[in-house]
Amino acid sequence: MRQATLEKDIRDSILDAVGRLLGHYGYKKMTVDDIAHEAGIGKGTIYLYFPSKEEVALGWIDRANKELLEQLNLITASDLPPDERIRRFLLTRVMFRFDSVQQFAQSLDELYVAMRPIFHARRNRYHDAESQVLAHALAQGRVVGIFHCEDENAVARLMLLATNSLLPYSLSAGELGQRDEIEAKVLGIADMILNGLLRRDTSACVIARIVHEKPE
Amino acid sequence: MRQATLEKDIRDSILDAVGRLLGHYGYKKMTVDDIAHEAGIGKGTIYLYFPSKEEVALGWIDRANKELLEQLNLITASDLPPDERIRRFLLTRVMFRFDSVQQFAQSLDELYVAMRPIFHARRNRYHDAESQVLAHALAQGRVVGIFHCEDENAVARLMLLATNSLLPYSLSAGELGQRDEIEAKVLGIADMILNGLLRRDTSACVIARIVHEKPE
Repeated sequence: MRQATLEKDIRDSILDAVGRLLGHYGYKKMTVDDIAHEAGIGKGTIYLYFPSKEEVALGWIDRANKELLEQLNLITASDLPPDERIRRFLLTRVMFRFDSVQQFAQSLDELYVAMRPIFHARRNRYHDAESQVLAHALAQGRVVGIFHCEDENAVARLMLLATNSLLPYSLSAGELGQRDEIEAKVLGIADMILNGLLRRDTSACVIARIVHEKPE
Repeated sequence: MRQATLEKDIRDSILDAVGRLLGHYGYKKMTVDDIAHEAGIGKGTIYLYFPSKEEVALGWIDRANKELLEQLNLITASDLPPDERIRRFLLTRVMFRFDSVQQFAQSLDELYVAMRPIFHARRNRYHDAESQVLAHALAQGRVVGIFHCEDENAVARLMLLATNSLLPYSLSAGELGQRDEIEAKVLGIADMILNGLLRRDTSACVIARIVHEKPE
């Protein structure tokens, strides 16, 4: 086994152990000794990979977001219709995170509160990466004449913002609600954004003029 | 002065004092003695109106949300074009809350964390009330033929969800960003929802068929 693969395996074993411990005990109670015991390796080995408990937890969140980004790239590269790619993209960015913290119950708040300042910066990085993939999916739809979209980067960021309130960042899984409810909400937002609210046989400018010109 | 008016004045004085104290000291440090001193009334009088410090703080949040709802009702009853009413509605629901916690800085997290379980239930009530007003605004637009919208209640809830991530619930004012940035984001989401992403000269069903039937 090559050195790089072995190192990746050890890193993954540590992060797998962290995921299980976060689910069972929560962030506060978890110690680096616990992680070493759960992963079946020495405490010193953990410090070779991560300088602190905080960094191990961030490593676990980083890995999950990397896996999510791979899934989002696959959706964008798929042969689904462009609007269906957008639906799947938004659904996946929410449900992947929902599923990854399902076993966390009450302990999620604790994790995010403990790591708030450093996590906030990472979260922006994750969303920036998602935004780039989504902008690409929007451009694909524009090129084949399905979307009208002047600034894909801006629209991509707005679409992420419009689904951010469904992410398990500030809410515990219990507060978020049932899985099928969240799914329905994401798809509802996706369809609302795709279809728009204004009637297709008019335009916003025309409407504003008609309404303003109607007799008092 | 009638009794009901006097009672409302005292209640408002207490809540005004709470707002100032939350801004200066934060929720944890604030005591009922502080509130009495700041409002210039006896501690016993406060307990005539509110059973606990928690209830005074909730009373302050309740009052702010009631004021917001009045503003939203005014927007819905205005003679602005229906799509402009929707824009103003969404802008107001976000910016009113942004402005009302501007002086809170870091202490906002503390307030929400301390009152999380009870506040979560209230928050749903506030949003339900907003949703009813927004559904009415959507129905107005449908009646005059501007919006196509089959289930106004469902769409209203989705529009609130799509702007919830911009509310100062989980984020401190610092994390939320600058006022003009938030404004631009709300308006961007509003326009995206109003206009839709799919081209107006086609429909989603037609698109899906075209894309699926294209030569491999």
